[in-house]
Amino acid sequence: MQPDALRSLLNAVARGETNADEALEALSTLPFSDIGDAKIDHHRALRCGLAEVVLCEGKSPSQVRSIARELLEHGDVFLGTRASAAHFQKVAQVASDARYLEECRLLLVDRREVQPALGHVVVASGGTADHPIAEEAAICTEVMGNRVTRVYDVGISGVHRLLAHEDVLRDANAIIAVAGMEGALPSLITGLVPSPVIAVPTSIGYGANLGGIAALLTMLNSCASGMAVVNIDNGFGAAALASRINQMVARSE
Amino acid sequence: MQPDALRSLLNAVARGETNADEALEALSTLPFSDIGDAKIDHHRALRCGLAEVVLCEGKSPSQVRSIARELLEHGDVFLGTRASAAHFQKVAQVASDARYLEECRLLLVDRREVQPALGHVVVASGGTADHPIAEEAAICTEVMGNRVTRVYDVGISGVHRLLAHEDVLRDANAIIAVAGMEGALPSLITGLVPSPVIAVPTSIGYGANLGGIAALLTMLNSCASGMAVVNIDNGFGAAALASRINQMVARSE
Amino acid sequence: MQPDALRSLLNAVARGETNADEALEALSTLPFSDIGDAKIDHHRALRCGLAEVVLCEGKSPSQVRSIARELLEHGDVFLGTRASAAHFQKVAQVASDARYLEECRLLLVDRREVQPALGHVVVASGGTADHPIAEEAAICTEVMGNRVTRVYDVGISGVHRLLAHEDVLRDANAIIAVAGMEGALPSLITGLVPSPVIAVPTSIGYGANLGGIAALLTMLNSCASGMAVVNIDNGFGAAALASRINQMVARSE
Amino acid sequence: MQPDALRSLLNAVARGETNADEALEALSTLPFSDIGDAKIDHHRALRCGLAEVVLCEGKSPSQVRSIARELLEHGDVFLGTRASAAHFQKVAQVASDARYLEECRLLLVDRREVQPALGHVVVASGGTADHPIAEEAAICTEVMGNRVTRVYDVGISGVHRLLAHEDVLRDANAIIAVAGMEGALPSLITGLVPSPVIAVPTSIGYGANLGGIAALLTMLNSCASGMAVVNIDNGFGAAALASRINQMVARSE
Amino acid sequence: MQPDALRSLLNAVARGETNADEALEALSTLPFSDIGDAKIDHHRALRCGLAEVVLCEGKSPSQVRSIARELLEHGDVFLGTRASAAHFQKVAQVASDARYLEECRLLLVDRREVQPALGHVVVASGGTADHPIAEEAAICTEVMGNRVTRVYDVGISGVHRLLAHEDVLRDANAIIAVAGMEGALPSLITGLVPSPVIAVPTSIGYGANLGGIAALLTMLNSCASGMAVVNIDNGFGAAALASRINQMVARSE
Amino acid sequence: MQPDALRSLLNAVARGETNADEALEALSTLPFSDIGDAKIDHHRALRCGLAEVVLCEGKSPSQVRSIARELLEHGDVFLGTRASAAHFQKVAQVASDARYLEECRLLLVDRREVQPALGHVVVASGGTADHPIAEEAAICTEVMGNRVTRVYDVGISGVHRLLAHEDVLRDANAIIAVAGMEGALPSLITGLVPSPVIAVPTSIGYGANLGGIAALLTMLNSCASGMAVVNIDNGFGAAALASRINQMVARSE
Amino acid sequence: MQPDALRSLLNAVARGETNADEALEALSTLPFSDIGDAKIDHHRALRCGLAEVVLCEGKSPSQVRSIARELLEHGDVFLGTRASAAHFQKVAQVASDARYLEECRLLLVDRREVQPALGHVVVASGGTADHPIAEEAAICTEVMGNRVTRVYDVGISGVHRLLAHEDVLRDANAIIAVAGMEGALPSLITGLVPSPVIAVPTSIGYGANLGGIAALLTMLNSCASGMAVVNIDNGFGAAALASRINQMVARSE
Amino acid sequence: MQPDALRSLLNAVARGETNADEALEALSTLPFSDIGDAKIDHHRALRCGLAEVVLCEGKSPSQVRSIARELLEHGDVFLGTRASAAHFQKVAQVASDARYLEECRLLLVDRREVQPALGHVVVASGGTADHPIAEEAAICTEVMGNRVTRVYDVGISGVHRLLAHEDVLRDANAIIAVAGMEGALPSLITGLVPSPVIAVPTSIGYGANLGGIAALLTMLNSCASGMAVVNIDNGFGAAALASRINQMVARSE
Repeated sequence: MQPDALRSLLNAVARGETNADEALEALSTLPFSDIGDAKIDHHRALRCGLAEVVLCEGKSPSQVRSIARELLEHGDVFLGTRASAAHFQKVAQVASDARYLEECRLLLVDRREVQPALGHVVVASGGTADHPIAEEAAICTEVMGNRVTRVYDVGISGVHRLLAHEDVLRDANAIIAVAGMEGALPSLITGLVPSPVIAVPTSIGYGANLGGIAALLTMLNSCASGMAVVNIDNGFGAAALASRINQMVARSE
Repeated sequence: MQPDALRSLLNAVARGETNADEALEALSTLPFSDIGDAKIDHHRALRCGLAEVVLCEGKSPSQVRSIARELLEHGDVFLGTRASAAHFQKVAQVASDARYLEECRLLLVDRREVQPALGHVVVASGGTADHPIAEEAAICTEVMGNRVTRVYDVGISGVHRLLAHEDVLRDANAIIAVAGMEGALPSLITGLVPSPVIAVPTSIGYGANLGGIAALLTMLNSCASGMAVVNIDNGFGAAALASRINQMVARSE
Repeated sequence: MQPDALRSLLNAVARGETNADEALEALSTLPFSDIGDAKIDHHRALRCGLAEVVLCEGKSPSQVRSIARELLEHGDVFLGTRASAAHFQKVAQVASDARYLEECRLLLVDRREVQPALGHVVVASGGTADHPIAEEAAICTEVMGNRVTRVYDVGISGVHRLLAHEDVLRDANAIIAVAGMEGALPSLITGLVPSPVIAVPTSIGYGANLGGIAALLTMLNSCASGMAVVNIDNGFGAAALASRINQMVARSE
Repeated sequence: MQPDALRSLLNAVARGETNADEALEALSTLPFSDIGDAKIDHHRALRCGLAEVVLCEGKSPSQVRSIARELLEHGDVFLGTRASAAHFQKVAQVASDARYLEECRLLLVDRREVQPALGHVVVASGGTADHPIAEEAAICTEVMGNRVTRVYDVGISGVHRLLAHEDVLRDANAIIAVAGMEGALPSLITGLVPSPVIAVPTSIGYGANLGGIAALLTMLNSCASGMAVVNIDNGFGAAALASRINQMVARSE
Repeated sequence: MQPDALRSLLNAVARGETNADEALEALSTLPFSDIGDAKIDHHRALRCGLAEVVLCEGKSPSQVRSIARELLEHGDVFLGTRASAAHFQKVAQVASDARYLEECRLLLVDRREVQPALGHVVVASGGTADHPIAEEAAICTEVMGNRVTRVYDVGISGVHRLLAHEDVLRDANAIIAVAGMEGALPSLITGLVPSPVIAVPTSIGYGANLGGIAALLTMLNSCASGMAVVNIDNGFGAAALASRINQMVARSE
Repeated sequence: MQPDALRSLLNAVARGETNADEALEALSTLPFSDIGDAKIDHHRALRCGLAEVVLCEGKSPSQVRSIARELLEHGDVFLGTRASAAHFQKVAQVASDARYLEECRLLLVDRREVQPALGHVVVASGGTADHPIAEEAAICTEVMGNRVTRVYDVGISGVHRLLAHEDVLRDANAIIAVAGMEGALPSLITGLVPSPVIAVPTSIGYGANLGGIAALLTMLNSCASGMAVVNIDNGFGAAALASRINQMVARSE
Repeated sequence: MQPDALRSLLNAVARGETNADEALEALSTLPFSDIGDAKIDHHRALRCGLAEVVLCEGKSPSQVRSIARELLEHGDVFLGTRASAAHFQKVAQVASDARYLEECRLLLVDRREVQPALGHVVVASGGTADHPIAEEAAICTEVMGNRVTRVYDVGISGVHRLLAHEDVLRDANAIIAVAGMEGALPSLITGLVPSPVIAVPTSIGYGANLGGIAALLTMLNSCASGMAVVNIDNGFGAAALASRINQMVARSE
Repeated sequence: MQPDALRSLLNAVARGETNADEALEALSTLPFSDIGDAKIDHHRALRCGLAEVVLCEGKSPSQVRSIARELLEHGDVFLGTRASAAHFQKVAQVASDARYLEECRLLLVDRREVQPALGHVVVASGGTADHPIAEEAAICTEVMGNRVTRVYDVGISGVHRLLAHEDVLRDANAIIAVAGMEGALPSLITGLVPSPVIAVPTSIGYGANLGGIAALLTMLNSCASGMAVVNIDNGFGAAALASRINQMVARSE
């Protein structure tokens, strides 16, 4: 884990090939960031199971194509979130094996051999309209190397449906609970089982829903302890956290 | 249902005691409002079981004392909501039988003989901290002549506790569901039983609770259909609506 | 009302065909939810007059088609709210008798014989632009088996027009009051008559209207007691509550 | 690009065709600057009937005392709004004839001879709790030299009470309508009579009232045309505008 | 001013042609509103100079065409605000002399003879982008029979430009001040001249402008007294109030 | 794990002491919730290391005393959050060994023998003013049986200070990152190390801080993936989630 | 109260001691009005390096064309911000050398000879999606005559990348820091170097981003002192302030 | 500027007293932050003229006393902002020469010899109630070694008063403009003179002022380019930025 460049420099000093002043200048011009960046990138690959995830929304299709080309030169996975069909068309020009999952707006190139899916993450959702975000969460979690079980359409209006899945929920190392409208599903699950729960509010609803703010506030104010919240419609963010938790548990086993 | 004053006037015209011009002038100076006001007051007594309810907050203790004195001269009930101890002290000067229910901030003078409690209204609450508002709702509903059952501390974190009261909830002509924090209780109840549900968000909570706005939004965005919402901490408002519904059903029986 | 499956199991225990441990295991694998779900569905049909109402917005046309097909296999009514023309086209593929009420965005398949319309619900609206939501409320209420009277265009700027309908308002078991802009109509009605009032804010307006939040706040802060509020533009929600109230009264008569 | 008029004037002075005093007068009808400041002060006195009104809130008692002393040296009226008892005590040190109107938080020194009260301004209010702001408006309007009629407690829940005052409302050159809670009173009045209406939302209410924002939004979104709104609880601001209108009409007569 | 229908009825009673009971029934079926509506309509015409103004936004083109046809049968002016081209095309089918002022979205049919323009209203605006709303205000004011002077592009960044128009501002019976962005123009004008000022915030701007809320708040919090505010982009509302003020002054002269 | 009461009943059926109908009735009156509640309580103890945590804020001191007495009869830990000195005084009446941690408002009775502290949770904070919430998180985490390292005062303005603690952060099974003001600390940490991060916004700040909403929004919008957010000032909530994660990892080892 | 200086000047003219031209010059150093307008325009050119910048958004293409034509008659630069392609097409009709920078929505006509770029302004950005606003800032700063260095994609998730540019940041007379999402970049930079920092929040993000409000609040609540904020997406505004600072420093050197 | 510790280590390597592996370990245990921290602290002193400024609000008096003691051991200035009297009393225990500026809530210990005040910063304010924040800004700017001119009470309602100070404003290297209510003062100043303007919104006002949000939004939406905004009531923040700008200009001269 010791940076070789630094070791080489120190050895040069020890051998008298470089004096202290030259070494000092070299150290000061050797940016911290280069060392750091490499270290961080390495960490990213270690913890996420893939080199880089790109938020496509807000970037032009050409920009995403450039980023994808660069990432695929040095790696074998590219995952774009909140991608449009236009993003897909540009990326397909440089990666003919790119797939576009339209419903959940994911853009995926995966050239790895089949990976073992570790541990267990459950993705639960409240209703049919929450599927795109739930799928974004589920697929991202899978791409990161985790085993995923989907428990969909178990919203608060059918509380007995949820109770029927208590066992699978209890087995998870992490639960992602996706809900729009009043967003009470994560509270219910957190009250039922001991697994850590990641709540994802969706922008599903209308009127005083305020684009998902209502569900977000519900989740933040939950009286059930043991859950936390990510941004509205942020299925990927929930996947990243669930993966961090699940990988840690799976590797401890 | 015909207003007597108007009939008298028309009879006078018919008898020639008053000519058309005089009648016209009388009609135009006879303000609509006087007829209306009386009619409306009469309705108020009919539907609420008491002449007038006074929101004390925002009024000075002296103002509340004056209003109480006036109402008790013509009636035998005075109900003040959101009252302070200072309001009580002033009202006690003109009504030694006034009672102050400190927890729920009600100020009550009730000189009626024992009334039959009609129908059935359930008041449910999520947690201990919601009691003051739940009690405001329950007592106001009782004062308006309705039979009340309290189902307290059945919040979402203990969903099985709520299920245990399904029968009493199902028996109600109207259910008042009081909840703070994430405010999911009314949704759960509405999904369980066919009675109309009146949701009362409370200002209980902190942080992103926003003084009850979080619970209010949860309730407005409920995916359970068959409920409606009153203002934050408005136990009295819920009681008034529950009483309107319950009295109508009880009288139809 | 006793669940037969449970009785059979207990009889088997009594007959010695099943011992306590086997029964215990059977009970624990017999999910509560299956019993519960059926019971709840049965309740839904009983109280609403139809099996299921589907919020189409946020679901894909294909998803709605699947849901409609499934519901119509087991029932004879399908009601979709906030539906688009695209939703209608897909549903028409599996239900050639589907109707699309474009103005109020309802998608209806109704294969029941003519039903008696029970009780009396009034739907009042403030202005022409509120018609779509008022119609959503009125038609949903009718589909649920209630008699409906429409009192439209009686907004606050023409207060005398409203007064002319006092009798019909007074006759209702429940009043749905739909209003945008400043949203004062429900307050006026609640002050006039003893019926329970369900206020529906609409998103009609501009500027500081904030997409209906202004009307919503007006209604929540009403000083007229005896009304409650549903979400902005939620005509269906108001219908569901009005139906709960009206059916209860009509059946008590 | 040099202003010709100014050059011509200066040349006329140089040629002796105009003397300095005449030029000075000509210049004073030419706008702005030091001259302008004086002119504006003069206007303030003319249009308001008093030299200066001071918002006390946010200023220390000593600061208000200093301002009061200075104003009373050059004038014979001092009016402080939103004043506390502490402000009053300090001002009383330099003006023993200062009066403190506690309910509406006005601090008044008026050493003028009795003034004629011109024109007609009506101040209407919704409920008892709105009195402090209504009185702030009424007294400020009177101090500015206008005749005021108070029409209090005519809120929307007693719409017939308001109708009874239609004549006095119709007679006004300007109407100040003060209301809290849902704030619908100004809309009602604007729909009834042709006078210009100034709506004052008050912070009276609770819960989703948001400190008066609810009433403010109601008023801004009114569908009754011919009214405008001032800040929450800004009785003085309404008085200033009503006075501008009323004085203009009264002087045209 | 006495309603003829009522007089006829009373005369019939007096002549014995109708007895009291029949008259009472006639009166009770003769809705107050018809009398009232007529009276109110009459007032509208008197005070506004035209029978009815219609907010087109939110209404379908067909609905607007129906309303226009009805109004033009009984009157000779139709004014539609916030109209689209689609509204115009439908109205043109029933009124070939309809004009569509696209920039300010007004739809006008005016069959009156040339009217005298009374009094004096100034419409001031801050910048080029505020023109559509300023023109909505100016043209509506003119259609209501008032003389209008436009003082455009005098925003706060060019304060000297505004000062140059002090005389015309001072001459007005009412000033409409239209501004977006930070919305400080009305404050500046109110500080300069004694006329009543009606502030119109526009939705011009971006980012933290919040669709005009920023300008609205600026205006509500103005420290210049003597102005009031209408809804964002509500040029018509400002015109209606300015007309009420100006007509009152003009008729007092 | 089988509920004894249920087994007894079934055995009685098997032995013929109870027939199927009697058992059915017993089962139907034996509320689901009792079974469920016991199960859930059992889970709570298993997963949290303590029976029950009570939010004191919003409850009266007497209510908290009653709850504490009841919990301590059946267990040996009582933890109250957001407690006031008044709460402490009442609880001390029934538990003389109660401790009040004033800075972080915790009220603790812990009668357990010394417990092993499992795993590793880091609590990081941005500044001195965030200490109370950080301590609430740290102490609650410890009471739940987890080993805690505190890394305080490593806010964004001293980014190098944070980098110095990279190793301890990297060692944690879960990191609680507490920050007020702009709340950027959790993002920085999430970008540095692979552990799951729970962000706690605090209400520290002023002005546009909006009582912590600013920090909350920062955290929800973080571009660093692998973190989630709890309510403002909710140190306990973060502890509960961190404990769920850490216990799961520690037990897998 | 008459200004003595003015009287003295006029008397000097009258006495022939000063001629009209001298007086006119003296008056022109005396502030304001028509003279002032000219002076201010002159200042604008001096400080910005160009006569006028036009916000195109909200103006029609024809209006922008007219303004461009007028400005280019008297000057040799026209810079339009937030311009659409439609604006460009109209302006190209009167200026065939107009350029449209689509990504950052700038519309530029620059007929000046090559200018020296003074001083040093750094424009830093957080991510690829912030480029359009960063480029708007950078190009506007350059057009105003300042030397610009771009430091892009140095967002908070790669803090070491930022540290590598410490020297160039430290060299700047002003730094414009552009960031969306959680918007923490400006805080980091302000904590690193002593230059004044101008923070530009962008509307990049989704969910609780609220169109950039989240980033704006982050920046306003920064605990790093020495920075200030402009409106969301206001690259031009940041450029104008950076230019004011940089030109002042560059000219002092 | 080279860190001595690092040089010593490298020299030891060069002299063979330390080999590369030992040096590497020493470097890895020698936290970056220590180097960085020192460097940053050095920068702070260089750029601000004082070692550290402490936000007292949110910290306990004892915590502030500890921080003050520590800072005064190594330096000769301590500046606390938003301090209470309680903070002062504790700090006075360890620094008897501490001064408390109550109005602007500053806590100052300054043991430096008289410093030259460099450059020129103007602090302008709108009204008397803005004085505390204006003084916080002015005194902090002075403590940081800058020459300050105060231009107070030049709010928008007295625009001519502001124009009279154009010269002093034009002379400043930076202008801090403090304003509450509608907050238009900074826009006016930015439009008048070429200096960079730092706008400070204050929480002065009431009603729809929203605790200063109204003024903040006004400033963010200013159409005058060349200004930026700090947090509400953040006089110190404005001072820090003004000092950065002014020191840079002053040192370039």
